[in-house]
Amino acid sequence: MSDFKVIGGGVCAAKGFKASGVYCGIKQTMNGNIPDGNDSPLGKKNDIAMVMADVVCNTAGVYTSNKVKGAPVIVTKENLAKTGGRARAVIVNSGNANTAVAGGEDVAREMCRLTGEALGIAPEEVIVASTGVIGQVLPIAPIEQAVPRLREGLSYEGNEAAATAIMTTDTVKKEFAVEFEIGGKVCRIGGMAKGSGMIHPNMATTLNFITTDCNISVSALQAALSETVKITYNCLCVDGDQSTNDMCMVMANGLAGNDEITENSEEYDIFKSALYEVMANLTRMLAKDGEGATRLITCICGSAPSVDIAIAAAKSVIRSPLVKCAMFGADANCGRILCAIGYTEEDFDISHVDIYYSSAKGKIKVCEDGVCIPFSEEIAKEILLEDEVDLLIDLNTGDKSAAAWGCDMTYDYVKINGDYRS
Amino acid sequence: MSDFKVIGGGVCAAKGFKASGVYCGIKQTMNGNIPDGNDSPLGKKNDIAMVMADVVCNTAGVYTSNKVKGAPVIVTKENLAKTGGRARAVIVNSGNANTAVAGGEDVAREMCRLTGEALGIAPEEVIVASTGVIGQVLPIAPIEQAVPRLREGLSYEGNEAAATAIMTTDTVKKEFAVEFEIGGKVCRIGGMAKGSGMIHPNMATTLNFITTDCNISVSALQAALSETVKITYNCLCVDGDQSTNDMCMVMANGLAGNDEITENSEEYDIFKSALYEVMANLTRMLAKDGEGATRLITCICGSAPSVDIAIAAAKSVIRSPLVKCAMFGADANCGRILCAIGYTEEDFDISHVDIYYSSAKGKIKVCEDGVCIPFSEEIAKEILLEDEVDLLIDLNTGDKSAAAWGCDMTYDYVKINGDYRS
Repeated sequence: MSDFKVIGGGVCAAKGFKASGVYCGIKQTMNGNIPDGNDSPLGKKNDIAMVMADVVCNTAGVYTSNKVKGAPVIVTKENLAKTGGRARAVIVNSGNANTAVAGGEDVAREMCRLTGEALGIAPEEVIVASTGVIGQVLPIAPIEQAVPRLREGLSYEGNEAAATAIMTTDTVKKEFAVEFEIGGKVCRIGGMAKGSGMIHPNMATTLNFITTDCNISVSALQAALSETVKITYNCLCVDGDQSTNDMCMVMANGLAGNDEITENSEEYDIFKSALYEVMANLTRMLAKDGEGATRLITCICGSAPSVDIAIAAAKSVIRSPLVKCAMFGADANCGRILCAIGYTEEDFDISHVDIYYSSAKGKIKVCEDGVCIPFSEEIAKEILLEDEVDLLIDLNTGDKSAAAWGCDMTYDYVKINGDYRS
Repeated sequence: MSDFKVIGGGVCAAKGFKASGVYCGIKQTMNGNIPDGNDSPLGKKNDIAMVMADVVCNTAGVYTSNKVKGAPVIVTKENLAKTGGRARAVIVNSGNANTAVAGGEDVAREMCRLTGEALGIAPEEVIVASTGVIGQVLPIAPIEQAVPRLREGLSYEGNEAAATAIMTTDTVKKEFAVEFEIGGKVCRIGGMAKGSGMIHPNMATTLNFITTDCNISVSALQAALSETVKITYNCLCVDGDQSTNDMCMVMANGLAGNDEITENSEEYDIFKSALYEVMANLTRMLAKDGEGATRLITCICGSAPSVDIAIAAAKSVIRSPLVKCAMFGADANCGRILCAIGYTEEDFDISHVDIYYSSAKGKIKVCEDGVCIPFSEEIAKEILLEDEVDLLIDLNTGDKSAAAWGCDMTYDYVKINGDYRS
């Protein structure tokens, strides 16, 4: 892997991207109240964000595979089809998913029209996204009020205002960016993500907006995104529910000045590694901030006969409610992990599997050759009580590996989702 | 469907089946203590059961598809292969699954040998099963002590002693039996089941022992069981974890005196309907007693293009952690259900779906033609606060239907499984 420097700036880290975020009262309006239109009044977090590129961007996207698709997902795909994968701006709100409601696509198109008009670009050059409650009409009035304020607020330092605006039950904002060199030119990739519940690995999970100043063709960008989604967002599981509004977009404006990267360029792999760095780190942040989570669980499956088997086994463990509960209780129940590997749908030999628990406090073997072995419960407990715990699985039947990310299942997950809408 | 009379007697309801259950201290022994060998001392529930048929039985089984298989599953399959599907007795313990440990199959075979010796039958005529913690050695000593007491305790009224002995985190015993007529002869089918967590619809879930005095061939019995498992136990989901020890066995001793039923007999469908009655009711009991559950959730998917699609959609809803949490909070969040239908893997048209909540308190429509509609939150809450709630889905694209059973997800599920082994 090449050298990447981790930098700040999130979705504005790359050259030529401005962002903004404001409060417009979407949730309040839904409940029948009148939005006050003030910018982020005390205790009211931003709920709508805008990203604007200085020049038109080559753009790639990966979307939910849920049969129920949010209206913004449908409209964004339509827009990019019309422009041949070129976009200039993003408009995204939280608090309401604009999904499974009559007239949802009209609202999403109106969001594009308002944004295009304010920014002097075509409505088809706008990526539109929404996240929040499903099945309630998204009111356009507060958005109409917000768009001019978003335009005025656009700034090369606006990444944090935007990143906080897309949060729903997220407790922390998720931003990550790296700097690297391509052909002597300094390039940057950065992004923001949201997501906490309704997270299950199948296509891009959650909302993700990534920007880069790298010069790369639309098809190479799409290929890099699709390949990287498979080993990052798709290996993330909070609860096994796949959202209707999942969307992961990458916009490349080419301002770094490198020669255009295509799928056959030597530099393609460098770009993809940098993209992996950003997406894998956002994935870890999403897992760690899973609804109600007290610890980040990473499952690494090694010495597997294929990458697909390694991914499937690691995801099966990460998704298991019983493993997740045991992790909450810091209970070194080796049988739970073995059971979850066992019901992985892929076909493979489990009889040589070794399992270890690992964290900053140490590493302990709990299963050897498919059989649970005696171990120190005391040491295991100490390892499992850490904030970040790795579950290491060696299938001992090959040389491939993969990771999956998740979190423990807690009382708070149940509490948050017992009455999500209020 | 024919006329069935619901009767008592569980696994002893059919003519010619005795059962017994005693306490032998399996869990205590595992923790290094000495078993006291007393029969069900105060506060110590039965942990080992025996079922004995007066004559040899045609026997069918369905087993876990987990790649990690409990040693008793392997040994029972071996035994039935040797005898050509004939068995005479069952020995089953709770507290320890005898799974993922060295020498597990030897322990399971020793359980068959001890039982066969005590009952004067071949060890291969014994069905052996275990349920409980995975990955800890099952001690044979307490079982050796228990077998003579189990033999002495065998009685035509022993069903309850046996049904309580197989419970783990179950809070109630599960028994059900029906009486019906075949060719003028009175026949009975009855059974007992255990299961509370690690329940996910794929092959027979949990431990189930069903007995009948009906005269039916081994192949017809296997066909009836396999077909009925698909629409009963396989449509049950507590948490999405599939056990390593799942086993559903049916023993038919023919003492009712009817002509032997084969797959081509007219009576085959009557038998299968009766079997369905028993298995569907046990399934409901298992769902209602799901770990930490406060309410039984039944999802019925109707007007579907195929039974497989109806099953898949109903199971997807029942399995969704977000739906389960919303049910715990009696939150009428229509979007959660729609989302879960949407990520069903089968391919079908969701655009005409209607969704209703229903219970003893009434019925309310919350989604029409794929779009969430306004409804009275007050009435919906009242409906959802009942102990038994139905989620009714009409796909409006065909005439097939299916049901799936589950429960809500609660703080107690997390608590029970945060430290299951202690």
